[in-house]
Amino acid sequence: MNVPIPPPHEGLDAIRETLSGYYAGAGEFDIVVHHQAESASGVVMNERLDRILANGRWIELPVMGVFELSDGKVVKWRDYFDVGQLSAQM
Amino acid sequence: MNVPIPPPHEGLDAIRETLSGYYAGAGEFDIVVHHQAESASGVVMNERLDRILANGRWIELPVMGVFELSDGKVVKWRDYFDVGQLSAQM
Repeated sequence: MNVPIPPPHEGLDAIRETLSGYYAGAGEFDIVVHHQAESASGVVMNERLDRILANGRWIELPVMGVFELSDGKVVKWRDYFDVGQLSAQM
Repeated sequence: MNVPIPPPHEGLDAIRETLSGYYAGAGEFDIVVHHQAESASGVVMNERLDRILANGRWIELPVMGVFELSDGKVVKWRDYFDVGQLSAQM
């Protein structure tokens, strides 16, 4: 889920469609993880710079994400970022 | 630092002035921490809902924060949120 852009995408098909859409518009995708941590209850959080090459130009978005896991698989993923910071580069 | 609103506030005086400004406009301040984790290198991250009572109305902002510590004190604090989500409530 993009927290500033609800609603969440739920189910494998919806998630595949959403992520495919991101990748389709990107020549390259680069993720720089600054910090990552796991809570006592197994929730993973990270602070990242997501870099997307679109139309020959790198778009850079500072992001924090939280990942809830079950049986070793991500079951919830929420990203926090500023929509304005993204749209200003598009 | 509010990541979507640079520049960072640096130094005790600048930080005190900035935080005082937030509190001055708030009747109440409520922070709901959903998840919190510490990395192997001692960086703390959390996912929160910051609630601010302003002019008799609660403003609710989903936030993720990262805190770098040294000698038990916070030396860097970065919050990630969507400016639009905040301004839409003001």
